[in-house]
Amino acid sequence: MKIVKNPGLKEWELLTRRPSKSAAELDKMVDAVFENIRKKGDKALFDYTSEFDGVALKLLKIDSSVLKDASRLVPAKLKKAMAVAVQNITRFHLSQKEKIQKIETMPGVICWRESRAIERVGIYIPGGTAPLFSTVLMLAIPAKLAGCREIMLCTPPDKNGKINPAILYAANLVGVTAVFSIGGIQAIGALTFGTESVPAVSKIVGPGNQYVTAAKQRAQNWGVAIDMPAGPSEVLIIADKKADAEFVAADLLSQAEHGADSQVILVSTSEKIIADVQVELKKQLKKLPRKNIASQALKNSLAILLETDAACIGFSNLYAPEHLILATENATELAKKVINAGSVFIGRYACESAGDYASGTNHTLPTNGYARNYSGVSLDSYVRKITFQKISKKGIREIGPAIEEMAEAEQLFAHKNAVTVRLKKLKK
Amino acid sequence: MKIVKNPGLKEWELLTRRPSKSAAELDKMVDAVFENIRKKGDKALFDYTSEFDGVALKLLKIDSSVLKDASRLVPAKLKKAMAVAVQNITRFHLSQKEKIQKIETMPGVICWRESRAIERVGIYIPGGTAPLFSTVLMLAIPAKLAGCREIMLCTPPDKNGKINPAILYAANLVGVTAVFSIGGIQAIGALTFGTESVPAVSKIVGPGNQYVTAAKQRAQNWGVAIDMPAGPSEVLIIADKKADAEFVAADLLSQAEHGADSQVILVSTSEKIIADVQVELKKQLKKLPRKNIASQALKNSLAILLETDAACIGFSNLYAPEHLILATENATELAKKVINAGSVFIGRYACESAGDYASGTNHTLPTNGYARNYSGVSLDSYVRKITFQKISKKGIREIGPAIEEMAEAEQLFAHKNAVTVRLKKLKK
Repeated sequence: MKIVKNPGLKEWELLTRRPSKSAAELDKMVDAVFENIRKKGDKALFDYTSEFDGVALKLLKIDSSVLKDASRLVPAKLKKAMAVAVQNITRFHLSQKEKIQKIETMPGVICWRESRAIERVGIYIPGGTAPLFSTVLMLAIPAKLAGCREIMLCTPPDKNGKINPAILYAANLVGVTAVFSIGGIQAIGALTFGTESVPAVSKIVGPGNQYVTAAKQRAQNWGVAIDMPAGPSEVLIIADKKADAEFVAADLLSQAEHGADSQVILVSTSEKIIADVQVELKKQLKKLPRKNIASQALKNSLAILLETDAACIGFSNLYAPEHLILATENATELAKKVINAGSVFIGRYACESAGDYASGTNHTLPTNGYARNYSGVSLDSYVRKITFQKISKKGIREIGPAIEEMAEAEQLFAHKNAVTVRLKKLKK
Repeated sequence: MKIVKNPGLKEWELLTRRPSKSAAELDKMVDAVFENIRKKGDKALFDYTSEFDGVALKLLKIDSSVLKDASRLVPAKLKKAMAVAVQNITRFHLSQKEKIQKIETMPGVICWRESRAIERVGIYIPGGTAPLFSTVLMLAIPAKLAGCREIMLCTPPDKNGKINPAILYAANLVGVTAVFSIGGIQAIGALTFGTESVPAVSKIVGPGNQYVTAAKQRAQNWGVAIDMPAGPSEVLIIADKKADAEFVAADLLSQAEHGADSQVILVSTSEKIIADVQVELKKQLKKLPRKNIASQALKNSLAILLETDAACIGFSNLYAPEHLILATENATELAKKVINAGSVFIGRYACESAGDYASGTNHTLPTNGYARNYSGVSLDSYVRKITFQKISKKGIREIGPAIEEMAEAEQLFAHKNAVTVRLKKLKK
């Protein structure tokens, strides 16, 4: 880690910058793939899968027998662990159901909201070395709880054209409608435009690399909604002098192992803890199977010494981390001052891994500073909140004159007239 | 209106299509304006305002004395009407504040969400013939209630370089931080990139014409969040044979007068009501100051006869209207079957004008079929819901083994280790 001591406020902005990508070039690539999918449908998908994933598929959609069969291939211990995660994720996301509150804003004027699930959604599960079945749980459980009728899942096949059984098992367990062996930009294109095999969806959710993220952002220009732009993962840890250096180092590494482009930041008022963590990092890094990835990520990472707690939380709010771990004695107090973050972990036992897998909170979170303007995935990601209103005779009499006055001032006389004809008829 | 009798299911999709725009051309225009603003800042804004609004401004930001002075120029009756609207909009949007619910997903594992306001937001108020102060109320009241620290408002100046006093009065009344005389694509560009005068914001909300909408969609590729793509306004009315043709016609016209590109659709199981509404439309149209606009909009509009209530609501769900008026005896029942709509008006006295101005619901709503995947503006539009978790010693012992199991299965050993080091230390 690069250690920065007491940087001035002017330097803060520079320190919070993420490595930038050339958006224009990515956009061009996305546009070309999208155009091809619009024109050629499935054929384009087969071609890209052959080109990028190095495998010639016969079918894009996973057969339902393969889906069901996956259960056999997943160890019982893992199924049991997944069941714990499913239970906790379900409990937490169920609590996000909004109760209907009818509000009488004026006598006879009643307004309320009701949630309706988006009918068909698409879920993207990244490929790579690790089979991210946990992301299947995180994305599909709230979709199902919200009441989405169709949940389409896309994930890239491996070199043998297969999807990891743990992913298929998880998908089947939590009610995914269909699984497609499609990855990258082409998966987002398929879900956006629809092809012979893949139905178009109204919203696409899920994390991805820079290509997937660029494709999701572009999909918005084609009428599809997305959860958020979710790029390389990141954590910021605020640790005080009493923090456990072993725990802090372990948490930093659990983020660093995600990818060479992961962002890992330690902020502290204690020079000693920063030094101790460096020692622990070296020690723990040696034993990690993914030590090459993690040590690359650490090279781009920062340990920042600041003078006060207020400065630590101030820096964190400016950085807007995806994950924020408060490894301090006053963590509960500090949590109240969080303005920008995706998910916050309070105290020494709330490690990021807990939220990544099983505590119940969602792990699909805004990265790259997007915690300033986006929330993580939740039940809200899968519903529209529709407003309803009922107005009685008394209600229109109460509210009518104000509407007439305002409509006239906006020179919208037909708006005014819609009230006037009603008030007139009530006078008869 | 074009009258269509008992169309087959195959025709439905065609009937629900909106007039399409050439997105690619708009995108090019947006990119050019954005590029210019990034390079030249305020200078580009002054140039575009001169070119598009035909006025050479000296300042982009409205002076605070002008803001305060606007109160003098607004009639007392209008101020009183606005006060009614402010009260109702405030009441309804306050009810959207989420209470914190701490969920113990497992013994010792506590998860919850807290809302945090987006720090700086931008509001766009369209220009044109009508001074849309009502949109100022609809966008700024929930921003203020959510706790946004800075609310920046952009709206195009008139030919004399002025902003209508009703807009300035409304902005001042509900706590807008600053008002800028900037319209169109350049307003969205200014809020996206920031210039010498205009600070960059994290989210842009508000309706607009096709240029503004295209610019908002493009702004998302530059890290800014938006409320939704909100294009030309639209209403769908389901009326039964007992509906009041005069009311229905008045409601159709109140939508049609918005613009020649407004969409107005009547769906009914009664041939008689369709015929009666046509007669009423002619009668009421004559008296409207904006009859040219409204009659153009009506030309593109449809009256559709269907056989059953189920078909009527089915058609509406496929169309996904911004506004849905249920002018039927069984409106309350029908409302339960709504899947896709922005805002729903139940019964004969709930006219769209009520929601447009004063009942309390928001009038910034998804158009163009976006009701399938977007909600209208609400308190939610201005907050991020951040997840928090606290895990006790007992909690990590309970949940730890499941996390270790899943992390190992995903081959993320540093994730596993973050739990292992904690469990080990607890055993000591």
